[in-house]
Amino acid sequence: MKKEKKGQSEKGLTVKKEENFSEWYSEIVKIAELADLRYNVKGFIVFQPWSVLVMEKMYKHLERVLQKKGHKPYWFPTVIPEKNLLKESEHIEGFSPEVFWVTQAGDNELEEKLALRPTSETAFYQMFSLWIRSYKDLPFKTYQRANVFRYETKATRPFLRSREFYWIEAHCAHRTLEDAEAQVREDMETTKEVLHDIFGLPFIFFERPSWDKFHGAHRTFAADVLNPDGRVVQQPSTHLLSKKFSEAFDVKFKDKDGKEKHAYITCYGPAVSRIFASIVIIHGDDKGLKFPWQIAPLHVAIVPIGNDEKVIKKANEIKEKLSEIKEVDLIGSELSVEIDVSEKTPGEKFNYWEMKGVPIRIDLGLKEIEEGRITVFRRDIGKKETINEKDLIKYVNKVKTESGNNLIKEADKVFNKRIADTKNIDEIKKAINSGMIARCDFCSVGNEGISCAEVVEKQAGAKVRGKKLIPEKPSTGKCAICGKAAKEVVYIAKDY
Amino acid sequence: MKKEKKGQSEKGLTVKKEENFSEWYSEIVKIAELADLRYNVKGFIVFQPWSVLVMEKMYKHLERVLQKKGHKPYWFPTVIPEKNLLKESEHIEGFSPEVFWVTQAGDNELEEKLALRPTSETAFYQMFSLWIRSYKDLPFKTYQRANVFRYETKATRPFLRSREFYWIEAHCAHRTLEDAEAQVREDMETTKEVLHDIFGLPFIFFERPSWDKFHGAHRTFAADVLNPDGRVVQQPSTHLLSKKFSEAFDVKFKDKDGKEKHAYITCYGPAVSRIFASIVIIHGDDKGLKFPWQIAPLHVAIVPIGNDEKVIKKANEIKEKLSEIKEVDLIGSELSVEIDVSEKTPGEKFNYWEMKGVPIRIDLGLKEIEEGRITVFRRDIGKKETINEKDLIKYVNKVKTESGNNLIKEADKVFNKRIADTKNIDEIKKAINSGMIARCDFCSVGNEGISCAEVVEKQAGAKVRGKKLIPEKPSTGKCAICGKAAKEVVYIAKDY
Repeated sequence: MKKEKKGQSEKGLTVKKEENFSEWYSEIVKIAELADLRYNVKGFIVFQPWSVLVMEKMYKHLERVLQKKGHKPYWFPTVIPEKNLLKESEHIEGFSPEVFWVTQAGDNELEEKLALRPTSETAFYQMFSLWIRSYKDLPFKTYQRANVFRYETKATRPFLRSREFYWIEAHCAHRTLEDAEAQVREDMETTKEVLHDIFGLPFIFFERPSWDKFHGAHRTFAADVLNPDGRVVQQPSTHLLSKKFSEAFDVKFKDKDGKEKHAYITCYGPAVSRIFASIVIIHGDDKGLKFPWQIAPLHVAIVPIGNDEKVIKKANEIKEKLSEIKEVDLIGSELSVEIDVSEKTPGEKFNYWEMKGVPIRIDLGLKEIEEGRITVFRRDIGKKETINEKDLIKYVNKVKTESGNNLIKEADKVFNKRIADTKNIDEIKKAINSGMIARCDFCSVGNEGISCAEVVEKQAGAKVRGKKLIPEKPSTGKCAICGKAAKEVVYIAKDY
Repeated sequence: MKKEKKGQSEKGLTVKKEENFSEWYSEIVKIAELADLRYNVKGFIVFQPWSVLVMEKMYKHLERVLQKKGHKPYWFPTVIPEKNLLKESEHIEGFSPEVFWVTQAGDNELEEKLALRPTSETAFYQMFSLWIRSYKDLPFKTYQRANVFRYETKATRPFLRSREFYWIEAHCAHRTLEDAEAQVREDMETTKEVLHDIFGLPFIFFERPSWDKFHGAHRTFAADVLNPDGRVVQQPSTHLLSKKFSEAFDVKFKDKDGKEKHAYITCYGPAVSRIFASIVIIHGDDKGLKFPWQIAPLHVAIVPIGNDEKVIKKANEIKEKLSEIKEVDLIGSELSVEIDVSEKTPGEKFNYWEMKGVPIRIDLGLKEIEEGRITVFRRDIGKKETINEKDLIKYVNKVKTESGNNLIKEADKVFNKRIADTKNIDEIKKAINSGMIARCDFCSVGNEGISCAEVVEKQAGAKVRGKKLIPEKPSTGKCAICGKAAKEVVYIAKDY
């Protein structure tokens, strides 16, 4: 462990995002003080204020929408007894290499070892079996915000993959398969509503191929976000667990016809700390971070130029004036305004707040004050604008609406350009090698398609990510790999 | 594990709070569905929506005030390596019997075992040593919201004492002892601002005697809340850790005089899940829960009487009308309104929402609609009132302000009656046996006072809880136990 070199965060980024994305990401995490990787347990990191403030807002947005759709919040224990995990065989087989185990307490060996939850199906569903009695209790819609633990053997990356991460897991029980399928579509809609429309992330929601399902799931659906290096990151997934877990945990209800039946179960898992990574990656540029207004940790930074008392006084007046703005965002935040009175030079402060991704920066000098004008820098469009002081509130309200939309539009534009239609393995390879997602006709996402998927993986170094739940167009052609009749249109991409 | 008997929650409480407080508490936790104790790991419980909604609001109030006072939020890892815990000898000695240990991951034995944090001093301060360089970095004020783990050997009670609980821990580093002491006073003020003025809890903030300090603290301060059974519950504590931990973890800064010095450290820990217990206990009555407006999980419950379509239509109109109220509370919540369309009878619904502690219930029948009047039940004063429909918004805004204040006033009144001035051990015993806190002159809260404290414990079954930081009056008398000159005025109470 060593002390940071002083002033690093004022100098800004030294690596360009398009030239070396991986380095750029490491550098922004460090200089924007998003996370400190020097904690002395491998794979565990310290989340710092600038990311925590954003992730807390992300939680509020997600929870607001989930609650509106009828999910109730719970806090389940962090520990799950081994016997629960053993109840569903595919689940334990999939997760057991990744589980941290608590085996001692004080000086005692525990009689039964306890898992640090890698996910909480086996905690929730034993309680579902106590809470659900009748079809009138269904749908039974729950969620919790929680930290979960996985003993990752792959290399960890801050926010993207670490041994402890922060998510929401929503677990629901349903009367019929149709209701469960409707829940999956609702989860997809929630993902669009929050991740795209508020956080500004473009993604495709896939049904994963049969060989790439969640341990214990009947069908798995997941959103992929595309990074600048041409690799996709899996964001929220939702799983039709069907009756596997309700049978294992005895989740039954008395149906309208008086018969006892097992419930259909679904679960949905937006990983807040991983989604944060995508927000940094998708919106960030060579100057630093950009945050959509709705999740910005700070809305307005005021940089006083010079030490004149008048300037500091005016800065405080502006801060006070801005507190008139009451409707700040969907989650009831207060407008946050900071006056930068640090010892840096104005130039260093300009760069610093640009790097930190604050939507509005006000550069305030004596000249501006005399002229009754305010110079504003907008991070979304990267431009300075001059406004009359009396228009400040109106202006901030305008930027509030516009800046998020601008980030979304820009991200969508970039994303849509990076999907290539391909007809054969050579075209797939070419697309993948130029950092694109390849779309093609494909024989099957069932087990019959495994051999073609293996060809893709071997030759293009990429994976079949799945098909859309509602395909854009009926597939009429031939499989791009084997040439047999194609049942599906699939998307192929590299992952990490 | 067994299924709940149907309808239990509609029948209401069967035990009276004053007659059997312990049973009353168990019953309210169960029928109001605050927590389910049937999770299959001893000492771990499932927090249910009605408590989680409140505790999430409690977090927001606490975090809002902490952030205003300059604390920045962090998320530290849940696991702490054993070597960190070993660095401060009193700390590990105190906590080691209570620590859960992670020793395995997947099929591997870990090289070093990891503690599930019982508290995070030893995680924070190793990072402080990396982050703090100069006196300009001080005060360095942090906090995190976190779940912590203690292998309690005493009997567990939901929210009051369980093996995993939810809290905030605020850790600060300071340049001087005076700054650290000022922080302790600020923490006390925060406690008053939030726990008393918003949550409505009366308490006394004590400096604990030398024999009752936090493991590793120089001085310990803690707030005690008094339960109806005459026992106190320790609520937020704040500790002057002084330089013990900064020396153990090498938290140093270059001072104005150019010299390297160890920082003074303080930590403050409001346990949200335990404070929730006090809110249930202090405000609840024989009808059930009462919640102050600022943390109510639901503000208004509308009970339609009869099945007439007009009634349901009107209920929806009222709900819509109420959404005009924008300034709901200090933390930017939306006004929450629910129409109870369950299959219960109106009488059952009345009792149910009273038991659940909703501040306002609207009982809506055809008669009221025809007369343009609304019948409202206020939980704070337990009375029905009739208002004109057009005055609804004004009325709700009035209750918003009044109801919290009423609960606070009532709680203060009860608390203040239960402090008895005592002169000797017999009077102390008498006070304690009638469920009071005994106040008396006392020789010393330093180690010289231990033998007198032992007399109190043996004869009155109660503990010396400490003295006020700023004593109300100078102590001029003699120690109530040994008769020597009294240095302090102390408070004596039973705990759990």
